Amino acid sequence: MNESKLMERVRTELSEERYLHSIGVMETAADLALKNGVDAQKARVAALLHDCAKELSIEEMLAKAHNHKVAIDEVSMWEMVLIHGPLGAKIAEHEYFVEDREILDAIECHTTGKKDMTKLDKIIYISDYIEPYRDFEGVSELRRMAMEDLDVALKFALDFTITDLLNTGRLIHPRTLEARNYIIIASSSLTASL
Amino acid sequence: MNESKLMERVRTELSEERYLHSIGVMETAADLALKNGVDAQKARVAALLHDCAKELSIEEMLAKAHNHKVAIDEVSMWEMVLIHGPLGAKIAEHEYFVEDREILDAIECHTTGKKDMTKLDKIIYISDYIEPYRDFEGVSELRRMAMEDLDVALKFALDFTITDLLNTGRLIHPRTLEARNYIIIASSSLTASL
Repeated sequence: MNESKLMERVRTELSEERYLHSIGVMETAADLALKNGVDAQKARVAALLHDCAKELSIEEMLAKAHNHKVAIDEVSMWEMVLIHGPLGAKIAEHEYFVEDREILDAIECHTTGKKDMTKLDKIIYISDYIEPYRDFEGVSELRRMAMEDLDVALKFALDFTITDLLNTGRLIHPRTLEARNYIIIASSSLTASL
Repeated sequence: MNESKLMERVRTELSEERYLHSIGVMETAADLALKNGVDAQKARVAALLHDCAKELSIEEMLAKAHNHKVAIDEVSMWEMVLIHGPLGAKIAEHEYFVEDREILDAIECHTTGKKDMTKLDKIIYISDYIEPYRDFEGVSELRRMAMEDLDVALKFALDFTITDLLNTGRLIHPRTLEARNYIIIASSSLTASL
Protein backbone atom coordinates (compact mmCIF):
# COMPACT_ATOMS: atom_id res chain seq x y z
CA MET A 1 0.00 0.00 0.00
CA ASN A 2 1.52 3.39 -0.87
CA GLU A 3 1.48 6.27 1.58
CA SER A 4 -1.57 8.07 0.21
CA LYS A 5 -3.59 4.83 0.30
CA LEU A 6 -2.38 4.17 3.85
CA MET A 7 -3.40 7.68 4.90
CA GLU A 8 -6.79 7.30 3.28
CA ARG A 9 -7.42 4.03 5.07
CA VAL A 10 -6.14 5.26 8.45
CA ARG A 11 -8.45 8.27 8.06
CA THR A 12 -11.47 6.00 7.69
CA GLU A 13 -10.46 3.73 10.58
CA LEU A 14 -9.60 6.35 13.21
CA SER A 15 -11.47 9.25 14.77
CA GLU A 16 -10.58 12.64 13.31
CA GLU A 17 -8.68 13.59 16.47
CA ARG A 18 -6.52 10.49 16.36
CA TYR A 19 -5.99 10.80 12.63
CA LEU A 20 -4.67 14.35 13.11
CA HIS A 21 -2.46 13.13 15.96
CA SER A 22 -1.08 10.40 13.67
CA ILE A 23 -0.32 12.94 10.95
CA GLY A 24 1.41 15.08 13.56
CA VAL A 25 3.52 12.12 14.68
CA MET A 26 4.28 11.37 11.01
CA GLU A 27 5.64 14.85 10.29
CA THR A 28 7.63 14.96 13.55
CA ALA A 29 9.05 11.48 13.03
CA ALA A 30 10.08 12.33 9.46
CA ASP A 31 11.98 15.38 10.76
CA LEU A 32 13.72 13.39 13.49
CA ALA A 33 14.54 10.61 11.01
CA LEU A 34 16.26 13.05 8.64
CA LYS A 35 18.21 14.56 11.54
CA ASN A 36 19.35 11.13 12.75
CA GLY A 37 20.18 9.32 9.51
CA VAL A 38 17.10 7.09 9.68
CA ASP A 39 14.93 6.19 6.66
CA ALA A 40 12.26 8.90 6.75
CA GLN A 41 9.80 6.82 4.73
CA LYS A 42 9.91 4.04 7.32
CA ALA A 43 9.42 6.63 10.06
CA ARG A 44 6.37 8.05 8.25
CA VAL A 45 4.70 4.66 7.85
CA ALA A 46 5.40 3.59 11.44
CA ALA A 47 4.06 6.92 12.72
CA LEU A 48 0.95 6.82 10.56
CA LEU A 49 0.06 3.33 11.80
CA HIS A 50 1.31 3.52 15.40
CA ASP A 51 -2.17 3.94 16.89
CA CYS A 52 -4.06 1.74 14.42
CA ALA A 53 -5.22 -0.54 17.29
CA LYS A 54 -5.88 2.20 19.83
CA GLU A 55 -9.56 2.76 19.18
CA LEU A 56 -10.60 -0.87 19.26
CA SER A 57 -13.00 -1.85 22.02
CA ILE A 58 -11.73 -4.12 24.77
CA GLU A 59 -13.66 -7.00 23.19
CA GLU A 60 -12.05 -6.35 19.80
CA MET A 61 -8.60 -6.09 21.38
CA LEU A 62 -9.07 -9.42 23.16
CA ALA A 63 -10.37 -11.13 20.03
CA LYS A 64 -7.60 -9.78 17.80
CA ALA A 65 -4.93 -10.55 20.41
CA HIS A 66 -6.19 -14.10 20.41
CA ASN A 67 -6.30 -14.29 16.59
CA HIS A 68 -2.75 -12.98 16.24
CA LYS A 69 -1.44 -14.78 19.31
CA VAL A 70 -0.32 -11.56 21.00
CA ALA A 71 0.41 -12.37 24.64
CA ILE A 72 -1.30 -10.16 27.23
CA ASP A 73 0.77 -9.93 30.40
CA GLU A 74 -0.81 -9.20 33.77
CA VAL A 75 -0.08 -5.46 33.78
CA SER A 76 -1.57 -5.11 30.28
CA MET A 77 -4.61 -7.12 31.34
CA TRP A 78 -5.28 -4.38 33.92
CA GLU A 79 -4.28 -1.55 31.59
CA MET A 80 -5.52 -2.79 28.24
CA VAL A 81 -4.45 0.38 26.45
CA LEU A 82 -0.90 -0.98 26.66
CA ILE A 83 -1.77 -3.75 24.25
CA HIS A 84 -2.40 -1.37 21.34
CA GLY A 85 1.33 -1.30 20.56
CA PRO A 86 1.94 -5.05 20.17
CA LEU A 87 -1.50 -5.52 18.63
CA GLY A 88 -1.01 -2.53 16.32
CA ALA A 89 2.14 -4.15 14.95
CA LYS A 90 0.14 -7.27 14.06
CA ILE A 91 -2.66 -5.23 12.47
CA ALA A 92 -0.12 -3.18 10.50
CA GLU A 93 1.36 -6.46 9.25
CA HIS A 94 -1.83 -8.36 8.48
CA GLU A 95 -4.35 -5.63 7.66
CA TYR A 96 -2.12 -2.90 6.20
CA PHE A 97 0.35 -5.38 4.69
CA VAL A 98 3.48 -3.80 6.16
CA GLU A 99 6.34 -6.27 5.84
CA ASP A 100 9.25 -4.22 7.15
CA ARG A 101 10.35 -5.61 10.53
CA GLU A 102 11.83 -2.30 11.73
CA ILE A 103 8.55 -0.50 11.13
CA LEU A 104 6.57 -3.22 12.89
CA ASP A 105 8.98 -3.23 15.85
CA ALA A 106 8.67 0.54 16.25
CA ILE A 107 4.87 0.27 16.35
CA GLU A 108 5.11 -2.65 18.78
CA CYS A 109 7.09 -0.78 21.45
CA HIS A 110 5.82 2.76 20.97
CA THR A 111 3.81 2.88 24.22
CA THR A 112 5.89 1.00 26.77
CA GLY A 113 9.33 1.33 25.22
CA LYS A 114 11.68 -1.64 25.63
CA LYS A 115 15.28 -2.53 26.28
CA ASP A 116 17.70 -1.71 23.45
CA MET A 117 15.44 0.41 21.22
CA THR A 118 16.58 1.21 17.68
CA LYS A 119 16.80 4.80 16.48
CA LEU A 120 13.51 4.31 14.64
CA ASP A 121 11.88 2.94 17.83
CA LYS A 122 13.10 5.99 19.75
CA ILE A 123 11.89 8.38 17.06
CA ILE A 124 8.36 6.97 17.08
CA TYR A 125 8.24 6.89 20.89
CA ILE A 126 9.40 10.50 21.17
CA SER A 127 7.35 11.83 18.23
CA ASP A 128 4.22 10.42 19.85
CA TYR A 129 5.02 12.70 22.82
CA ILE A 130 6.00 15.88 21.02
CA GLU A 131 3.92 16.08 17.82
CA PRO A 132 2.50 19.57 17.28
CA TYR A 133 -0.92 18.84 18.79
CA ARG A 134 0.56 17.75 22.14
CA ASP A 135 0.31 20.25 24.96
CA PHE A 136 1.62 19.52 28.45
CA GLU A 137 4.04 21.11 30.86
CA GLY A 138 7.51 20.25 29.67
CA VAL A 139 6.62 19.60 26.02
CA SER A 140 8.72 22.54 24.76
CA GLU A 141 11.74 21.29 26.70
CA LEU A 142 11.20 17.79 25.35
CA ARG A 143 10.90 19.10 21.76
CA ARG A 144 14.18 20.96 22.16
CA MET A 145 15.91 17.88 23.61
CA ALA A 146 14.60 15.67 20.80
CA MET A 147 16.18 17.94 18.20
CA GLU A 148 19.52 17.64 19.99
CA ASP A 149 19.82 14.12 21.34
CA LEU A 150 17.36 11.21 20.99
CA ASP A 151 18.67 9.40 24.08
CA VAL A 152 18.38 12.42 26.35
CA ALA A 153 14.84 13.01 25.09
CA LEU A 154 13.93 9.34 25.49
CA LYS A 155 15.18 9.28 29.09
CA PHE A 156 13.20 12.45 29.83
CA ALA A 157 10.05 11.01 28.27
CA LEU A 158 10.40 7.71 30.16
CA ASP A 159 10.96 9.56 33.45
CA PHE A 160 7.93 11.70 32.64
CA THR A 161 5.80 8.62 31.97
CA ILE A 162 6.89 6.81 35.14
CA THR A 163 6.37 9.94 37.26
CA ASP A 164 2.88 10.39 35.83
CA LEU A 165 2.01 6.74 36.57
CA LEU A 166 3.37 7.10 40.12
CA ASN A 167 1.40 10.28 40.70
CA THR A 168 -1.83 8.77 39.43
CA GLY A 169 -1.36 5.44 41.25
CA ARG A 170 -1.35 3.40 38.05
CA LEU A 171 0.63 0.30 37.15
CA ILE A 172 3.99 0.70 35.44
CA HIS A 173 4.86 -1.76 32.70
CA PRO A 174 8.15 -3.66 33.26
CA ARG A 175 9.29 -2.81 29.73
CA THR A 176 9.10 0.90 30.53
CA LEU A 177 11.46 0.32 33.43
CA GLU A 178 13.74 -1.81 31.27
CA ALA A 179 13.84 0.92 28.62
CA ARG A 180 14.88 3.50 31.19
CA ASN A 181 17.45 1.29 32.92
CA TYR A 182 18.91 0.35 29.56
CA ILE A 183 19.25 3.92 28.33
CA ILE A 184 21.05 4.88 31.55
CA ILE A 185 23.42 1.94 31.27
CA ALA A 186 23.96 2.43 27.52
CA SER A 187 24.69 6.11 27.88
CA SER A 188 27.38 5.22 30.42
CA SER A 189 26.22 7.95 32.73
CA LEU A 190 27.10 5.54 35.51
CA THR A 191 30.67 4.60 36.09
CA ALA A 192 31.58 1.06 36.99
CA SER A 193 31.94 0.50 40.70
CA LEU A 194 35.23 -1.31 40.46
CA MET B 1 22.37 -18.41 68.34
CA ASN B 2 20.14 -16.62 70.86
CA GLU B 3 19.24 -12.96 70.47
CA SER B 4 21.83 -11.54 72.83
CA LYS B 5 24.58 -13.52 71.11
CA LEU B 6 23.30 -12.34 67.72
CA MET B 7 23.31 -8.73 68.92
CA GLU B 8 26.82 -9.08 70.30
CA ARG B 9 28.10 -10.49 67.03
CA VAL B 10 26.27 -7.92 64.86
CA ARG B 11 27.76 -5.18 67.04
CA THR B 12 31.28 -6.42 66.30
CA GLU B 13 30.64 -6.84 62.56
CA LEU B 14 28.92 -3.52 61.80
CA SER B 15 29.85 0.11 62.29
CA GLU B 16 28.28 1.75 65.33
CA GLU B 17 25.93 3.78 63.12
CA ARG B 18 24.63 0.73 61.28
CA TYR B 19 24.36 -1.26 64.50
CA LEU B 20 22.17 1.47 66.01
CA HIS B 21 20.11 1.54 62.80
CA SER B 22 19.66 -2.24 63.06
CA ILE B 23 18.50 -1.95 66.66
CA GLY B 24 16.07 0.76 65.57
CA VAL B 25 14.70 -1.49 62.85
CA MET B 26 14.46 -4.33 65.38
CA GLU B 27 12.33 -2.33 67.81
CA THR B 28 10.11 -0.94 65.05
CA ALA B 29 9.68 -4.33 63.41
CA ALA B 30 8.74 -5.92 66.75
CA ASP B 31 6.04 -3.27 67.23
CA LEU B 32 4.65 -3.77 63.75
CA ALA B 33 4.77 -7.55 64.16
CA LEU B 34 2.68 -7.38 67.35
CA LYS B 35 0.18 -5.05 65.65
CA ASN B 36 -0.16 -7.37 62.66
CA GLY B 37 -0.22 -10.82 64.23
CA VAL B 38 3.29 -11.72 63.09
CA ASP B 39 5.86 -13.58 65.23
CA ALA B 40 7.75 -10.70 66.89
CA GLN B 41 10.80 -12.85 67.56
CA LYS B 42 11.18 -13.60 63.86
CA ALA B 43 10.78 -9.92 63.10
CA ARG B 44 13.51 -9.03 65.64
CA VAL B 45 16.01 -11.50 64.17
CA ALA B 46 15.29 -10.51 60.56
CA ALA B 47 15.64 -6.83 61.49
CA LEU B 48 18.85 -7.33 63.44
CA LEU B 49 20.49 -9.14 60.53
CA HIS B 50 18.93 -7.29 57.58
CA ASP B 51 22.07 -5.24 56.85
CA CYS B 52 24.64 -7.89 57.79
CA ALA B 53 26.09 -7.76 54.26
CA LYS B 54 25.84 -4.01 53.73
CA GLU B 55 29.28 -2.99 54.88
CA LEU B 56 31.19 -5.54 52.85
CA SER B 57 33.53 -4.15 50.21
CA ILE B 58 32.66 -4.70 46.56
CA GLU B 59 35.37 -7.37 46.39
CA GLU B 60 33.94 -9.18 49.43
CA MET B 61 30.42 -8.97 48.01
CA LEU B 62 31.56 -10.46 44.72
CA ALA B 63 33.51 -13.23 46.42
CA LYS B 64 30.68 -14.13 48.81
CA ALA B 65 28.08 -13.96 46.02
CA HIS B 66 30.21 -16.43 44.12
CA ASN B 67 30.69 -18.69 47.14
CA HIS B 68 26.97 -18.76 47.91
CA LYS B 69 25.89 -18.77 44.25
CA VAL B 70 23.85 -15.60 44.61
CA ALA B 71 23.03 -14.37 41.11
CA ILE B 72 23.91 -10.74 40.38
CA ASP B 73 21.60 -9.31 37.73
CA GLU B 74 22.65 -6.44 35.48
CA VAL B 75 21.02 -3.68 37.52
CA SER B 76 22.65 -4.99 40.71
CA MET B 77 26.00 -5.20 38.95
CA TRP B 78 25.76 -1.43 38.42
CA GLU B 79 24.26 -0.76 41.86
CA MET B 80 26.04 -3.31 44.01
CA VAL B 81 24.35 -2.08 47.17
CA LEU B 82 21.25 -3.94 45.96
CA ILE B 83 22.99 -7.27 46.44
CA HIS B 84 23.25 -6.85 50.22
CA GLY B 85 19.70 -8.19 50.61
CA PRO B 86 20.09 -11.52 48.78
CA LEU B 87 23.65 -11.87 50.05
CA GLY B 88 22.63 -10.92 53.59
CA ALA B 89 20.12 -13.79 53.57
CA LYS B 90 22.91 -16.24 52.70
CA ILE B 91 25.20 -14.81 55.36
CA ALA B 92 22.41 -14.96 57.95
CA GLU B 93 21.94 -18.61 57.02
CA HIS B 94 25.55 -19.73 56.83
CA GLU B 95 27.35 -17.40 59.24
CA TYR B 96 24.63 -16.65 61.80
CA PHE B 97 23.02 -20.08 61.44
CA VAL B 98 19.47 -18.81 60.90
CA GLU B 99 17.35 -21.64 59.54
CA ASP B 100 13.92 -20.04 59.39
CA ARG B 101 12.95 -19.52 55.74
CA GLU B 102 10.58 -16.63 56.52
CA ILE B 103 13.34 -14.69 58.28
CA LEU B 104 15.79 -15.35 55.44
CA ASP B 105 13.23 -14.31 52.82
CA ALA B 106 12.52 -11.04 54.63
CA ILE B 107 16.25 -10.22 54.70
CA GLU B 108 16.55 -11.22 51.04
CA CYS B 109 13.94 -8.75 49.73
CA HIS B 110 14.33 -5.89 52.21
CA THR B 111 15.94 -3.46 49.77
CA THR B 112 14.20 -4.04 46.45
CA GLY B 113 10.94 -5.52 47.64
CA LYS B 114 9.40 -8.22 45.47
CA LYS B 115 6.09 -9.47 44.14
CA ASP B 116 3.78 -11.03 46.74
CA MET B 117 5.60 -10.05 49.95
CA THR B 118 4.61 -11.71 53.22
CA LYS B 119 3.59 -9.63 56.23
CA LEU B 120 7.05 -10.20 57.71
CA ASP B 121 8.70 -9.07 54.43
CA LYS B 122 6.59 -5.91 54.48
CA ILE B 123 7.37 -5.23 58.14
CA ILE B 124 11.13 -5.42 57.60
CA TYR B 125 10.96 -3.32 54.42
CA ILE B 126 8.90 -0.61 56.13
CA SER B 127 10.77 -0.70 59.45
CA ASP B 128 14.01 -0.10 57.58
CA TYR B 129 12.43 3.16 56.36
CA ILE B 130 10.84 4.41 59.56
CA GLU B 131 13.06 3.28 62.44
CA PRO B 132 13.60 6.09 64.97
CA TYR B 133 16.95 7.24 63.58
CA ARG B 134 15.51 7.89 60.08
CA ASP B 135 14.88 11.49 59.21
CA PHE B 136 13.51 12.56 55.83
CA GLU B 137 10.57 14.54 54.53
CA GLY B 138 7.55 12.31 54.76
CA VAL B 139 8.88 9.98 57.48
CA SER B 140 6.22 11.04 59.99
CA GLU B 141 3.46 10.40 57.47
CA LEU B 142 4.96 7.01 56.66
CA ARG B 143 5.23 6.11 60.37
CA ARG B 144 1.58 6.97 60.83
CA MET B 145 0.57 4.90 57.78
CA ALA B 146 2.61 1.92 58.96
CA MET B 147 0.74 1.86 62.26
CA GLU B 148 -2.56 1.77 60.36
CA ASP B 149 -2.06 -0.31 57.23
CA LEU B 150 1.06 -2.17 56.08
CA ASP B 151 0.00 -2.20 52.41
CA VAL B 152 -0.68 1.52 52.27
CA ALA B 153 2.69 2.18 53.92
CA LEU B 154 4.46 -0.24 51.58
CA LYS B 155 2.98 1.42 48.50
CA PHE B 156 4.01 4.83 49.83
CA ALA B 157 7.56 3.62 50.55
CA LEU B 158 7.89 2.00 47.11
CA ASP B 159 6.62 5.17 45.41
CA PHE B 160 9.07 7.16 47.50
CA THR B 161 11.96 4.91 46.48
CA ILE B 162 11.09 5.00 42.79
CA THR B 163 10.64 8.78 42.84
CA ASP B 164 14.01 9.21 44.54
CA LEU B 165 15.70 6.98 41.95
CA LEU B 166 14.01 8.91 39.12
CA ASN B 167 15.07 12.24 40.59
CA THR B 168 18.67 11.15 41.04
CA GLY B 169 18.92 9.44 37.64
CA ARG B 170 19.66 6.03 39.12
CA LEU B 171 18.62 2.59 37.94
CA ILE B 172 15.40 1.09 39.32
CA HIS B 173 15.40 -2.62 40.12
CA PRO B 174 12.67 -4.62 38.32
CA ARG B 175 11.64 -6.24 41.60
CA THR B 176 10.82 -2.80 43.06
CA LEU B 177 8.46 -2.23 40.16
CA GLU B 178 6.98 -5.71 40.56
CA ALA B 179 6.41 -5.07 44.27
CA ARG B 180 4.55 -1.85 43.52
CA ASN B 181 2.49 -3.27 40.66
CA TYR B 182 1.61 -6.27 42.79
CA ILE B 183 0.47 -4.26 45.77
CA ILE B 184 -1.77 -2.14 43.51
CA ILE B 185 -3.30 -5.21 41.90
CA ALA B 186 -3.64 -7.07 45.21
CA SER B 187 -5.32 -4.16 46.93
CA SER B 188 -7.87 -4.12 44.12
CA SER B 189 -7.67 -0.38 43.90
CA LEU B 190 -8.12 -0.87 40.19
CA THR B 191 -11.37 -2.14 38.84
CA ALA B 192 -11.39 -4.63 36.03
CA SER B 193 -11.82 -3.04 32.64
CA LEU B 194 -14.56 -5.37 31.55
